Amino acid sequence: MTKELPKIAISIGDLNGIGIEIAFKCHDDISKICHPIYCINNKMLKKASEELKTKIPENFEIHKTKGEFEIKPGTVTKKSGKYSYDSFMDAINLANKKEVDAICTLPINKESWNKAGIRYKGHTEVLRDYFGKNAIMMLGCSKMFVALFTEHIALRKVAKKINEEDLTQFLIDFYNNVKNDNIGVLGLNPHASDNGVLGDEEVEIFKAIKKANKHLGKDIFKGPLVPDTAFSPLSRKNYTYFVAMYHDQGLAPLKALYFDESINVSLNLPIIRTSVDHGTAFNIAYKNENVNTQSYINAIKEAINLVSKQK
Amino acid sequence: MTKELPKIAISIGDLNGIGIEIAFKCHDDISKICHPIYCINNKMLKKASEELKTKIPENFEIHKTKGEFEIKPGTVTKKSGKYSYDSFMDAINLANKKEVDAICTLPINKESWNKAGIRYKGHTEVLRDYFGKNAIMMLGCSKMFVALFTEHIALRKVAKKINEEDLTQFLIDFYNNVKNDNIGVLGLNPHASDNGVLGDEEVEIFKAIKKANKHLGKDIFKGPLVPDTAFSPLSRKNYTYFVAMYHDQGLAPLKALYFDESINVSLNLPIIRTSVDHGTAFNIAYKNENVNTQSYINAIKEAINLVSKQK
Repeated sequence: MTKELPKIAISIGDLNGIGIEIAFKCHDDISKICHPIYCINNKMLKKASEELKTKIPENFEIHKTKGEFEIKPGTVTKKSGKYSYDSFMDAINLANKKEVDAICTLPINKESWNKAGIRYKGHTEVLRDYFGKNAIMMLGCSKMFVALFTEHIALRKVAKKINEEDLTQFLIDFYNNVKNDNIGVLGLNPHASDNGVLGDEEVEIFKAIKKANKHLGKDIFKGPLVPDTAFSPLSRKNYTYFVAMYHDQGLAPLKALYFDESINVSLNLPIIRTSVDHGTAFNIAYKNENVNTQSYINAIKEAINLVSKQK
Repeated sequence: MTKELPKIAISIGDLNGIGIEIAFKCHDDISKICHPIYCINNKMLKKASEELKTKIPENFEIHKTKGEFEIKPGTVTKKSGKYSYDSFMDAINLANKKEVDAICTLPINKESWNKAGIRYKGHTEVLRDYFGKNAIMMLGCSKMFVALFTEHIALRKVAKKINEEDLTQFLIDFYNNVKNDNIGVLGLNPHASDNGVLGDEEVEIFKAIKKANKHLGKDIFKGPLVPDTAFSPLSRKNYTYFVAMYHDQGLAPLKALYFDESINVSLNLPIIRTSVDHGTAFNIAYKNENVNTQSYINAIKEAINLVSKQK
């Protein structure tokens, strides 16, 4: 008896970008590990394949996202913005109705969304709004994942956001999603404040770690770790999962180490969603350049991993 | 005719730590590229060699730093604190009197300094006070150097420190020390503020870059760079020297990538000073463990490099 492969809805991203080329290139490979369903209709599929001068891969199962427009490689257009949004909404709906086990998103263009009158800044914001839940943003690859406690806010506003209550909830939610038993939590200040000499937010972080561990009945969370050595080779031997207090604290080391391999995961939602961690790469779209498919492959793999953890 | 090697005074660091072992191990190698003068007297040298169960290397030229005490491996003591400070002061004085071309410092222990009543937190602070000049702290290795615009301050205080005037002066001083023609300057906020959506300090940074470049008559400084991608492999192909707005922004990626190789350099002073970028490692001192000498060797090499640039 063959085990049934997990079904993954793939939102096709901005069709003026590199998403569809990546989907075509990887279809055979990912079909060995999952059952992909692409949110795109036959007409757009045909246009893309003509533009790419390549055949549509065999067994390319689609969910027919409505709409039709001319593909203009590397161009911000209202219609491509709208279509990428509709493809994404179709994928969400398939997951919400349990017709698929997870979704994986190819890159959209924020300017194109803007032109199409879509007020969201990106996928994660749509998901938060759709489900009314506080999604946790996690980036990384199998060697190292970083969850962000604060995300797209000015650096000067970060310190005020660090409080025991919110962070405790964040840590508990994060654990319940990744189920890893050893997670490093970063401090906020240089040297994790050197015992209060350089800031004092580590007190809140320490209390949150203690409270979350008590709630979970296990010493899951360690820290606050000294931020500048948390990602040193030695420290990375101890942790695969990290919680960063702010955007660049986690993402600068991650991208220094694993730029091409990294993916983006939305946790703490009723559905599983992973994504590539790169943009539409308009400059190389439809040019048969050597597009890097590692982030996409890893995003599919992590979706499968999260599905298996859920079961 | 043989070219004379640059003279480098080496402050011996905390004699209860790993400094002296590193100095012994590397003496023959560094003597091929410089003329080292160690700030330690004969009695202490003998005690250390006995404790290490190894001979004093041949041609181990010393400057006799006064004092005598029992070495207690891995222990915080008042006397070892005082001696490490005196050794450092002797090295500074040698450089200030031009008897050496540069100094290289082995690690001191801050607690031992504290016990000895020395009110400074570390080498750099002593140097600032001694010369009454605003030293620039730069860390890294030949593959990547990061200068810190702000250093040991709480993260919540960083944003207020970013202003055109101070940053312009910092950039000009930095260029005059490293003489590199392509230096990346990081933004402060996620995505370098996304055109003002996430903070606005990038406006000041942009103005400082423009002003510094105008002053220097060349487009030396580029940016503000998006902080989380500034250290990606692609970006590092463009830059070897970076200016970070705050401690962990520069040092977390640096230590993720080049932990063992990195060194600490004090720029913008009347003397050249480089240092290892590690501590006294009390846990392995005098145990004949495999101490890593890479940081020390690199610190010596960079001192030589800076001497050659000055001439």
